Amino acid sequence: MAILERSDTGAITRLTMNSPERLNALSDEMLAALQAEFDALREDSSIRAVILSGSGKAFCAGHDLKQMTQGRQASDGGLSYFQDLFDRCARMMMSIQSLPQPVIAQTHGIATAAGCQLVATCDLAIAAEGTRFGVNGVNIGLFCSTPMVALSRNISRKQAFEMLTTGDFITAERAAELGLINRAVPKEQLEEETNALAEKLATKLSSAVKIGKGAFYQQLPMPVDQAYAYTAEVMAQNMMDRDTEEGISAFIEKRPPDWRQ
Amino acid sequence: MAILERSDTGAITRLTMNSPERLNALSDEMLAALQAEFDALREDSSIRAVILSGSGKAFCAGHDLKQMTQGRQASDGGLSYFQDLFDRCARMMMSIQSLPQPVIAQTHGIATAAGCQLVATCDLAIAAEGTRFGVNGVNIGLFCSTPMVALSRNISRKQAFEMLTTGDFITAERAAELGLINRAVPKEQLEEETNALAEKLATKLSSAVKIGKGAFYQQLPMPVDQAYAYTAEVMAQNMMDRDTEEGISAFIEKRPPDWRQ
Amino acid sequence: MAILERSDTGAITRLTMNSPERLNALSDEMLAALQAEFDALREDSSIRAVILSGSGKAFCAGHDLKQMTQGRQASDGGLSYFQDLFDRCARMMMSIQSLPQPVIAQTHGIATAAGCQLVATCDLAIAAEGTRFGVNGVNIGLFCSTPMVALSRNISRKQAFEMLTTGDFITAERAAELGLINRAVPKEQLEEETNALAEKLATKLSSAVKIGKGAFYQQLPMPVDQAYAYTAEVMAQNMMDRDTEEGISAFIEKRPPDWRQ
Repeated sequence: MAILERSDTGAITRLTMNSPERLNALSDEMLAALQAEFDALREDSSIRAVILSGSGKAFCAGHDLKQMTQGRQASDGGLSYFQDLFDRCARMMMSIQSLPQPVIAQTHGIATAAGCQLVATCDLAIAAEGTRFGVNGVNIGLFCSTPMVALSRNISRKQAFEMLTTGDFITAERAAELGLINRAVPKEQLEEETNALAEKLATKLSSAVKIGKGAFYQQLPMPVDQAYAYTAEVMAQNMMDRDTEEGISAFIEKRPPDWRQ
Repeated sequence: MAILERSDTGAITRLTMNSPERLNALSDEMLAALQAEFDALREDSSIRAVILSGSGKAFCAGHDLKQMTQGRQASDGGLSYFQDLFDRCARMMMSIQSLPQPVIAQTHGIATAAGCQLVATCDLAIAAEGTRFGVNGVNIGLFCSTPMVALSRNISRKQAFEMLTTGDFITAERAAELGLINRAVPKEQLEEETNALAEKLATKLSSAVKIGKGAFYQQLPMPVDQAYAYTAEVMAQNMMDRDTEEGISAFIEKRPPDWRQ
Repeated sequence: MAILERSDTGAITRLTMNSPERLNALSDEMLAALQAEFDALREDSSIRAVILSGSGKAFCAGHDLKQMTQGRQASDGGLSYFQDLFDRCARMMMSIQSLPQPVIAQTHGIATAAGCQLVATCDLAIAAEGTRFGVNGVNIGLFCSTPMVALSRNISRKQAFEMLTTGDFITAERAAELGLINRAVPKEQLEEETNALAEKLATKLSSAVKIGKGAFYQQLPMPVDQAYAYTAEVMAQNMMDRDTEEGISAFIEKRPPDWRQ
């Protein structure tokens, strides 16, 4: 069994982290496998939505502490390995947001530390009721500094600060209230709900979704006037797409669009 | 009947978009009429609060797709027209936030695409229960890239991303939870509640509201130290206002202020 | 009785604003006393968490309007005094966020204007049910421009705008919903709950909390790639800490850590 399994159904790719005995820890191997799949998906225009899930009891429990501890045996005590590890992890996270296709986190069990970062980083997230979310590195003396980057861009600051400094877990319901996930559903409906969301996204014009997802993250940090100048151009270009013209005509004429994509 | 009706009651202006057969679409004419009124209001110190509402079944359904389709007949396929249209629309939106007076969106029916952007852009918003909000351009292949600028500055990012990529509508109650509007009220109380909010704003010292509204949007994107340096100066200048001095004295002396504005 | 009382219990400092007849107003004296304590705490590695509370009926009612009015007697009508006052106040607020230790606001009664800013500025906040929060300077003609800086970085923008321009108060329950505080608890449990949170923070590795709190505010305004580059380095350095190594080893070996700090 591969550490990361990919199965495609129509235009939807499901990536399943498959290291259940390590709670799908983001080891060097898992990070490399995720990076490789996202790099491949970036070029694959037949895929319109991606689901990221985990096998076994947990979605993902963060970094692989045993492997990190082995890294200390290097002559510099592991410093350059750790720096490289966190850089590779951040690159993988940013690959999710720069991917043309939307990525949905399908979460269950626990999503902790860099596993919680993964949920925060995905474009969308659905969780099984009972899932617990935490950035609990502080409990072992390793503050979740990189997970914080994603978390603090998803939820309000006092709530993020509390999670980071207490290490306390929050429920799926609370995660939905705070905006960390889109919603919590009964465990037995988790896969069905996630698939349904992915299928809905896959019915949209993929060029429009690609344009929109790219622009979403580009415009977020911009001052508002700059964001408008940028998105006005994006939207004018979107109008020039043959399939967008067809989509608008079909809407005006009250008929289904004949899209070529 | 004008495409945009203005009626003033005391210090309050109500602007009513009046193209109900087109669901108050932001056509060239509607954009020009809104821009003209905001330009006039900017200079009108007798007005202390503005309400923006729509006649007919909808608050506003976004851009006028039929007019946009006609724009395709230009020699460049409409590209320069579309670019200009989105620029004019963005300028009108930014005029709302740079207006000295607070602007309240009074929403009912539907507020979609650039109509949802209008709600997100107004300083305050009250909706009738039953109002539906969406950025549903993706359904016809035209991603709501410019509405996204306003939406993603109002609500958390996973919730914004879901609305933008699924095209799904949300209810008024959900819009209130997410922060897109201030609150939802029964339909029969909508106008009364909006008027009451406008009247409350109109009782405040208008110079203070003007100073505060301007500073609100100026300081939002600043680093915190820069925001404090800027607002400390704003607030010191506010203290030098004759009517502010009178307001503070009246408060200390437990009497109503004798404001000249 | 000092205007600001400090009492240390183990690794926890409680600062109690003690000017109840003035509702713990942020007078020149109170600001100086707070600044002095934060400056002292910054150097005091024996303290791991700070609680800020108020004696009497209110947490804090903002600036001292009587003292400010006396300031008008200067030859410039008070302008340079007011500028200096707001600068000193902002410096004190920023000292809270740059302090190595987490600071918890324990709020009751009212927290208004700069008192509400103080709540927004603290890293964490717990309120007694019944506490009322407001930025109500607009009611006397002095817009809460500096409190707005902290408030608008805690809660969504329409909700912040409404509080600032109407001057209306919100309840503790609403403040928790909006993200202004972490939670509301029954009044009789307020001190106990706040102490328990401080004690929990104090059990964590203080170097990790210090690293994390510093990085939290540093990375918030950064673009995401820059935030990752910065925090990856912070986290790699965190790994090199002797006590972090011990914390991770203890976790792997399922034993309590032997921390030296």
